[in-house]
Amino acid sequence: MNGQQDNQHDYIRVGIFGLGTVGAGLVHLLQEDRDLITKRVGQEIRITKAVVANPDKDRGIDLSGIEISNDPSFILDDPNIDIVVEVVGGLDLAEHIIIEAFRQKKSVITANKAVLAEKTQEIFDAAYASSQFFGFEASVAGGIPIIRTIREGFAGDSILELSGIMNGTANYILSKMTEEGALFSDVLQDAQEKGYAEADPTFDIEGNDTAHKLIILMSLAFNGIFQYKDLYTEGITQIEPLDIQYADELGYKIKLLGKAKRTPKGIEARVHPTLIPKTKMLSAVSDSFNAIELLGKFVGDSLLYGRGAGSHPTASAILSDLVEASRSLVVGEVSPLYPLSTGKEHLEKLPILPMEEVETPYYLRFTVYDHVGVLSKITTTFVDHNINIQSVIQKTQAHSGDTPIHLVIETHRANEASVQKALQKINQLDFVASQTRLIRMDVME
Amino acid sequence: MNGQQDNQHDYIRVGIFGLGTVGAGLVHLLQEDRDLITKRVGQEIRITKAVVANPDKDRGIDLSGIEISNDPSFILDDPNIDIVVEVVGGLDLAEHIIIEAFRQKKSVITANKAVLAEKTQEIFDAAYASSQFFGFEASVAGGIPIIRTIREGFAGDSILELSGIMNGTANYILSKMTEEGALFSDVLQDAQEKGYAEADPTFDIEGNDTAHKLIILMSLAFNGIFQYKDLYTEGITQIEPLDIQYADELGYKIKLLGKAKRTPKGIEARVHPTLIPKTKMLSAVSDSFNAIELLGKFVGDSLLYGRGAGSHPTASAILSDLVEASRSLVVGEVSPLYPLSTGKEHLEKLPILPMEEVETPYYLRFTVYDHVGVLSKITTTFVDHNINIQSVIQKTQAHSGDTPIHLVIETHRANEASVQKALQKINQLDFVASQTRLIRMDVME
Repeated sequence: MNGQQDNQHDYIRVGIFGLGTVGAGLVHLLQEDRDLITKRVGQEIRITKAVVANPDKDRGIDLSGIEISNDPSFILDDPNIDIVVEVVGGLDLAEHIIIEAFRQKKSVITANKAVLAEKTQEIFDAAYASSQFFGFEASVAGGIPIIRTIREGFAGDSILELSGIMNGTANYILSKMTEEGALFSDVLQDAQEKGYAEADPTFDIEGNDTAHKLIILMSLAFNGIFQYKDLYTEGITQIEPLDIQYADELGYKIKLLGKAKRTPKGIEARVHPTLIPKTKMLSAVSDSFNAIELLGKFVGDSLLYGRGAGSHPTASAILSDLVEASRSLVVGEVSPLYPLSTGKEHLEKLPILPMEEVETPYYLRFTVYDHVGVLSKITTTFVDHNINIQSVIQKTQAHSGDTPIHLVIETHRANEASVQKALQKINQLDFVASQTRLIRMDVME
Repeated sequence: MNGQQDNQHDYIRVGIFGLGTVGAGLVHLLQEDRDLITKRVGQEIRITKAVVANPDKDRGIDLSGIEISNDPSFILDDPNIDIVVEVVGGLDLAEHIIIEAFRQKKSVITANKAVLAEKTQEIFDAAYASSQFFGFEASVAGGIPIIRTIREGFAGDSILELSGIMNGTANYILSKMTEEGALFSDVLQDAQEKGYAEADPTFDIEGNDTAHKLIILMSLAFNGIFQYKDLYTEGITQIEPLDIQYADELGYKIKLLGKAKRTPKGIEARVHPTLIPKTKMLSAVSDSFNAIELLGKFVGDSLLYGRGAGSHPTASAILSDLVEASRSLVVGEVSPLYPLSTGKEHLEKLPILPMEEVETPYYLRFTVYDHVGVLSKITTTFVDHNINIQSVIQKTQAHSGDTPIHLVIETHRANEASVQKALQKINQLDFVASQTRLIRMDVME
């Protein structure tokens, strides 16, 4: 008898992989709100087993009632375990745990965005084949119920576009740079000292974490399977206080944005620093907060805002999945909800449009010697590449032609490949003092 | 055989009450996205019957395949109808339809906030007794999946506090007054001419609509049944451009806010115009948009933003409930989800704290003749009533003691009854030129 059907015992048995920050947070939440959760589910939810690399390590929490092992089969092969929670992170072990748990007909809950984004096909194949509950609310923006919102709240609508600030560390760094006019490297160091950024912050500041989350949301929003490696991803390490200041003067904030939308040519998707108009709600999202904006065909604009990470918000998202999975077990139903938004037969592998085909407005900062004819040469090159200028501002006054000045140009919507070609040409001109800075803009036109 | 169990036919049969803006919008959405919805549900959803007051009226939409009658039993007594959608609005007929549909073991979906807020006990008693699916996502902020978010997204957390801008008309009026410095009456008239406000806007501008929605959210958030008539409700008709301007200078926007929170003394809840700091996301919600902020014990601050009303957003919310109800019918399950957040045995009638016991900071605008000792008399009265002042600003310079000036005082958190008593005393003093204006503030302390 497998876990799903064996709901004869009077409580729900959960096996957890990993007792780090999030795993320990979950144990704590379940202890603190045991009565409330039991009321909501109709039965008690108990973590009865845990698998960790080092079973003897002191986790600083009360682990009474939990049997601990370092052998995955301790949970996976136990027919009494109803639900498996995977919070070990990483790729290979996590993939094994999730797929094997589905094979054993257990419900699965994970907070692991990397494995979902990089092994999408394998994991969803296993989830559909098992027909068990699959919860991954905690994988994207723990404090925001975005998975549920897309899968259920938008079940009566089609999502045309989604944009999100989905990495708390990157948003914290950009917010501090904006408030204090400080350098990226200084803010990063400070954030590391305060524990807001990890010792190796690569995934956060280079955009990979945002890209993982975007791929997951795209699967749900567009009913497809996407390739993580096809996603254009650019981080925030090159952002200078100067550009933040110029953007501010022009009415924008700079945020690390993951964006995806349906276009007549196909699904466009990308992660990069973005100028967002201060009139948009997204621009007001500061510190380590996250937010995701959805454009629905019928619903129009909507936005969800909240904590993206942290032990308690993430554990709370897992707990919301645990409650849902447990309610299904209590009434003995086969989960009626697809892990993604449609049945498997309707899921297709969808390509992401190449970055070269993207069209968006651009913020361009030229650093040039103030010679006669500079603007004319730039604008002529733009005309040759079919790029239309929205505004030009000269940001500094040169005392002589020997001190470089800044020219800031906002373009209308233009083609990425054309802009890159035009910049390549302009960067070779002799009046250009240093590399031109390009930041894409998110403007409603 | 009742509707629930009769899922042998190969499509889901829906009976709709009302074909006004929302009902017609639902018919249209189902036609336009028929294939997508069928993919999501696994079966087609068909509206097969409609009941309206005037069956012969032209609705401007394609009603083919829908049998129409003016007799409620045409739907309620038909064992083939699986799901009843109630969008007639109002109280008595709607209550009859909902309760009778539950009695006939049909799933029920409603957009009717008035009947839910004023007949909470009767309707939820019927819903629990029937064990059928009950969807009311469209009753609060159609474009925002707030019901689902509280019931499911926060299933692993406790909501400590919720605040919402939940009436699009009121928010549109306040936004226009803020942008244009215009009078309430002028903006209202303009909004009526443009169709943004109804011919009789009472429910919107006096706060009743917001109060209905707050009562529904409170039931979900605090697992209780509340009395609509116990809710303090104050509208926006007394707001003057002057106060909007002073608030702006102090760093606030004025919004019509519905707010509820747990306090050591009990559940506090109220609807009134409120000064919100510009640093809070809620202050950025303008035009006819709605937003709801939730404070979770574990999740911390979160906010959901989107369209509150309109044919398509509301119809889309109904459709999300239709998809959920239909998925349950397709797999033949008994709905495992409670209509509120817990089982009926855990639901209690909870009192709302009397308004006199509320504590909050206050914005007070005194209109006084600039005599010697005015401020001293006011502050002495405040001290007598245990009210502490945060700041005092004299807003206009009088040329002589005969022209009244404005004194704007921000208080620290103070008791409502004490503030009212103090103002009563001050309003009787001879230097007071006209009634003091009181607006409550929403400040994190």
